[in-house]
Amino acid sequence: MSPDDITGGRGRRHYTRGVGRWEPGAGDRLREAALTLYLERGFEQTMVADIADRAGVTARTFFRYFADKREVLFDRSAELERSALAALEAAPATASTLEAVAAALSAAADLIGQDRELARKRQAVIMSTADLRERELIKLADLSAALAEGLRRRGVPAAEAALATEAGSAVYRVAFQRWVDTEDGTLDLHEAIRQSFAQLHTLTTPH
Amino acid sequence: MSPDDITGGRGRRHYTRGVGRWEPGAGDRLREAALTLYLERGFEQTMVADIADRAGVTARTFFRYFADKREVLFDRSAELERSALAALEAAPATASTLEAVAAALSAAADLIGQDRELARKRQAVIMSTADLRERELIKLADLSAALAEGLRRRGVPAAEAALATEAGSAVYRVAFQRWVDTEDGTLDLHEAIRQSFAQLHTLTTPH
Repeated sequence: MSPDDITGGRGRRHYTRGVGRWEPGAGDRLREAALTLYLERGFEQTMVADIADRAGVTARTFFRYFADKREVLFDRSAELERSALAALEAAPATASTLEAVAAALSAAADLIGQDRELARKRQAVIMSTADLRERELIKLADLSAALAEGLRRRGVPAAEAALATEAGSAVYRVAFQRWVDTEDGTLDLHEAIRQSFAQLHTLTTPH
Repeated sequence: MSPDDITGGRGRRHYTRGVGRWEPGAGDRLREAALTLYLERGFEQTMVADIADRAGVTARTFFRYFADKREVLFDRSAELERSALAALEAAPATASTLEAVAAALSAAADLIGQDRELARKRQAVIMSTADLRERELIKLADLSAALAEGLRRRGVPAAEAALATEAGSAVYRVAFQRWVDTEDGTLDLHEAIRQSFAQLHTLTTPH
């Protein structure tokens, strides 16, 4: 799925509310403006009106795209969970438990890995505010729980399912951090995940 | 370290505040009373006065032990982090990265693993309240970050340190859940952790 698909999906969803004209590209401009302001001034100090101003739209338009200023950072969570879960469910029956988890992470990387600068800014904002960090941790825990449930539906025992998704979550977070920290853009998120899985295997091999 | 050491330590700390007589065993009675009430009535619906009543002490005594009703659930976090970090630092230089993490988890299990019923109740309360769950996730993430920093001081590269502690955290959480879910008490927390480490190795081995 491409970022255009996502934007298109969101655009259509909001358009059907019928509260006014949907402005092409406004969602992305608002997201960009919000992240820049959150980093410049701090999340708490940034008002919705500032974000709308910077994006060249009205506050009313902002609320057509996002419920509040926090949702700018989290509105893709549901999409991410759906994609990851669908990939896990689509993994062949012969796939090992961790291969099914890897398929889910790969789907997540398809979405997140498109724009490193956006991801880097979002991460910096989230880590700077305790409240946002808590919310991010809850979202990741919920995603992990949803994937574990998906594994159990595939017949994987509960403890193995939990361990595989928690380990997958660890792999993803570490790979994500390496990816956003690689300034020159030579590391792809998919490749970072693959490397972290390999490293996890090496780490867990008794010496 | 035994639970008596912890209680003794806490008692001494509070005694030095000089706000009144320190009552032997009151901390444990308050903890027990609080967990029981949180489970019976819900965390939000339980007042400090109810907890003190149930434990047979005054509210003033409650506040000698805990800053507020949330702290009953989290006051051992600092102790846990210190013990886990000390164990990681005391691991021999020849220990592998994951062996050092395993030593830290073992120290955590020494503290937590003493009382399965207490741990089970605490977990049930925390999972029932979004706010508490967020706090627990933050505490676990902070613990994981502290251990990763400890590994880096041992010369472990940052990405490997993060992956090892995140994977260790996954192992711990899954093992903890299995331990509290094993009603007949036949599973020891240390043994549950050992089994989860072995399972993680199996999971990450390519087929």
